[in-house]
Amino acid sequence: MAEPLLLGTNNQGKVVELAEIFRGLPWDIRSLADFPPVPAPIEEGDTFEANAIAKAAYFSQRFNVWCVADDSGLVVDALGGGPGVLSARYAGPDATDSANSAKLLAALEGTPESERTARFVCCAAVVKPDGDVHVEFGTVEGRIAFELRGRSGFGYDPLFIAEGFDKTFAEVGPARKLAVSHRGRAFRKLRAYLESL
Amino acid sequence: MAEPLLLGTNNQGKVVELAEIFRGLPWDIRSLADFPPVPAPIEEGDTFEANAIAKAAYFSQRFNVWCVADDSGLVVDALGGGPGVLSARYAGPDATDSANSAKLLAALEGTPESERTARFVCCAAVVKPDGDVHVEFGTVEGRIAFELRGRSGFGYDPLFIAEGFDKTFAEVGPARKLAVSHRGRAFRKLRAYLESL
Repeated sequence: MAEPLLLGTNNQGKVVELAEIFRGLPWDIRSLADFPPVPAPIEEGDTFEANAIAKAAYFSQRFNVWCVADDSGLVVDALGGGPGVLSARYAGPDATDSANSAKLLAALEGTPESERTARFVCCAAVVKPDGDVHVEFGTVEGRIAFELRGRSGFGYDPLFIAEGFDKTFAEVGPARKLAVSHRGRAFRKLRAYLESL
Repeated sequence: MAEPLLLGTNNQGKVVELAEIFRGLPWDIRSLADFPPVPAPIEEGDTFEANAIAKAAYFSQRFNVWCVADDSGLVVDALGGGPGVLSARYAGPDATDSANSAKLLAALEGTPESERTARFVCCAAVVKPDGDVHVEFGTVEGRIAFELRGRSGFGYDPLFIAEGFDKTFAEVGPARKLAVSHRGRAFRKLRAYLESL
């Protein structure tokens, strides 16, 4: 019987994406719905890596299983790497997507196109039952638009134009966004690592 | 520039699953969000195949692109293959999941376990801009439980116990259900077909 590998997320879209990425690995892929409910893990680290490991370690220890988890955010060069791990709460503890985007636009006011370079970064971590940890990173390079454009997606998507695109992530459909997903890239590297074990 | 291949569905979970399954194919994968809104296609065929082709052909013709689509349902041996293409509207035109499940349980009342065999079937179709069509099928074998069990999933999941499982699809989490998904099986065969072109 294969050992369980838990996908440590309550985001159902992420479960679908990861289940497909990890298909065929010699683990029994499980989601949180296969385990008793527990309080959400705390994410207060200073880096994507610290947060991804904290989440995966939390579920791994609770349930004594292999667990993967990730942390992601937007890194803007002109803001010294910000908002980074604060991406989801840039404009405050319970900030909306539009409040965060408005704050980002204001922070970049007067910044010319050539200096609006940015990237979405994802750190994916796996924690083993014995506590051993491995992480991988995935990124998608791009730049910050001068105004909000498009209605699909979430977060900073209406402001992010990926390299090779002339539209924001909120103007292109989810299939084109998934094709260059920083999360997909990080987890496919993690799959390669798991295959090597 | 690669030709577009449209994922002909408004179901976002399906877009995520298919974008991952079709990753790396020499097409530019698009979702409906990348095209102007159009009325929903009509599904009134007598078979999964007819409905899958009708959907894919509808979007393919509207937008002059390659398009994939699918149709799925539950096939119960003791009901002569029913509810089949009527799965979503077994108890009426706008039937709820619970009304459909209640009707299925009633129809199988007195049917012993050995005769409660069933399968989820998916037909996945691709239609090319020139009208050429190819279909593939995927199935997951199982049996119908004697009462509703579990809270996750949708449709007939609380009544379906897949082969090799001792719980219904609504009792196991989404990762374990996706691992044996009839839709995933059909679309992975369709990917192999597209690779062969």
